Amino acid sequence: MEINRLNNLINNANNIYLASHVNPDGDNIGSLLAMFKILKNLNKEVHLIINDEVPDSNKFLPNLEYAEKSENLDLKSDLFIALDCADLDRLGRVKDLFLDSETTINIDHHFSNTNFADLNIVNSKASATGELLYTIFENLKYPIDTEVATCLYTAIASDTGSFKYDSVTSYTFEVIAKLLTYGINKSEININLFQNRSLEKTKLLVKALNTLELFEENKIGVVTISDEIMLKLGAKISDADGIVEFIRDISGIEIAILLKEKKDNIRLSLRTKSFVNAINIASTFDGGGHIRAAGATIYLPLETAKEKVIKAAIGELNK
Amino acid sequence: MEINRLNNLINNANNIYLASHVNPDGDNIGSLLAMFKILKNLNKEVHLIINDEVPDSNKFLPNLEYAEKSENLDLKSDLFIALDCADLDRLGRVKDLFLDSETTINIDHHFSNTNFADLNIVNSKASATGELLYTIFENLKYPIDTEVATCLYTAIASDTGSFKYDSVTSYTFEVIAKLLTYGINKSEININLFQNRSLEKTKLLVKALNTLELFEENKIGVVTISDEIMLKLGAKISDADGIVEFIRDISGIEIAILLKEKKDNIRLSLRTKSFVNAINIASTFDGGGHIRAAGATIYLPLETAKEKVIKAAIGELNK
Repeated sequence: MEINRLNNLINNANNIYLASHVNPDGDNIGSLLAMFKILKNLNKEVHLIINDEVPDSNKFLPNLEYAEKSENLDLKSDLFIALDCADLDRLGRVKDLFLDSETTINIDHHFSNTNFADLNIVNSKASATGELLYTIFENLKYPIDTEVATCLYTAIASDTGSFKYDSVTSYTFEVIAKLLTYGINKSEININLFQNRSLEKTKLLVKALNTLELFEENKIGVVTISDEIMLKLGAKISDADGIVEFIRDISGIEIAILLKEKKDNIRLSLRTKSFVNAINIASTFDGGGHIRAAGATIYLPLETAKEKVIKAAIGELNK
Repeated sequence: MEINRLNNLINNANNIYLASHVNPDGDNIGSLLAMFKILKNLNKEVHLIINDEVPDSNKFLPNLEYAEKSENLDLKSDLFIALDCADLDRLGRVKDLFLDSETTINIDHHFSNTNFADLNIVNSKASATGELLYTIFENLKYPIDTEVATCLYTAIASDTGSFKYDSVTSYTFEVIAKLLTYGINKSEININLFQNRSLEKTKLLVKALNTLELFEENKIGVVTISDEIMLKLGAKISDADGIVEFIRDISGIEIAILLKEKKDNIRLSLRTKSFVNAINIASTFDGGGHIRAAGATIYLPLETAKEKVIKAAIGELNK
């Protein structure tokens, strides 16, 4: 059975590498730190590789101080465990360390996972890689402690929007019920993950929402953010994250549009709710993305860009 | 035992009244509809009294078409069950029907509950009245079906911000795990509760956020909603739901305050993030509630009320 093979590989390894994927999220960082602590509890020598910035919302997690950059490590490891990575390229420049490792394991919940390792434990029915890890740890009777439970709760809560997404099952709630018996500080986790919107971000959201315009019987919502507003609020580009989703979540909205001025160009972000293909709108401006989330860069003044995007959106809505 | 007495009272009653409290929320409506369906499943004659507007986010719930206004009902009932009501006044003008009922039951999870009925089943450790109802139904082997489970999930998810609040325990997650085995449409519930903010609500949020004032190094955030703004936007009272939580979720905020003008009085809503007891602030104004969520009605002009609430909040913050 797969998890017995996993157990054997871990038992026989002395030098284990774990690495985050590029632009790590809560499921990735939480899963990594949970596996790191489990391997430490099993008295393994383990290296935790995080090359990219850890999201602010995850910086409270335990053992992040052990994170290393891949540049400082030998190429060779006994065992490399990739967590929450759908394919090899998601490892970024750590890919070389993965390929040079004696043995490799891939633990993930992405449907598109390419089974790129020697041992692949992939379950697309798990709501998060953290959920899958809990199942593995429990089955192998690995020593789950408060820190491990904290990281797994964070992984699952992050990847499910606090248990709201369709991926969540009755089993997910059973797992969380068990994780809560390990004495974790749920309050601290939730404050960090969900109640920590910066003041700058809040102010930028309000400024953006003040520009909200609606078209086609309120099915299209458009907001704009000018360079001037960004400067005035001292906002970072990442402070605009979440604004276009906020528009999409208005009742009746099918197409949400955010136009962000950025010196000589306009960054277009698109979200659709249930039937319009966002890629078709983005591709009008040489952009791309997914069906419900797409974007493009437009080299036109803000007002002109807005007019053209609205026209394209109306066309796509009524197609 | 209390629930056996509950069972006897229900068994012996032929004409049962259930009523929402004033300004009903998701826990109140969900609990009412769950109890209504259970009593129907038990072949009881039951009247579901909802005098106030049901929040838009709850309008998808089953059996709302059976709701009646209290004016059309006889004063006399065999049994009146109040759900999610901390005190008798929360029943509004249905209070008379309650007092004229042969027997009364009060099922609630508010710490401040005044035990105002013949039989009081109050558990302030339950995350929602819906959670307490599940425990009762399960213990008495009452016939839970998909509709009952839908209403209980809605009650609990609503009152815990999708399982984020401190009131949520391992047991809450166990209850949800079980409710999900009844074939409920979790996706529909979550879209209605959390991804379907009305346009009026969005506009009211923006108007309110435009009044945001910060005190004590941004630890206290205050917003106000005037009667004038409500009129201008054609907003309903329930459109203000979620605003005070939005303020609480700003990084660094400990106390979030919403003051809503309502003709001759001010409705105060309070949320705290991690250490301030909101009840202590609310009780200054003869209000009450939970540690992290409390409220009061203040009979003063908006500006005077605001000054007094800020003063009380600063006092509590620095206690």
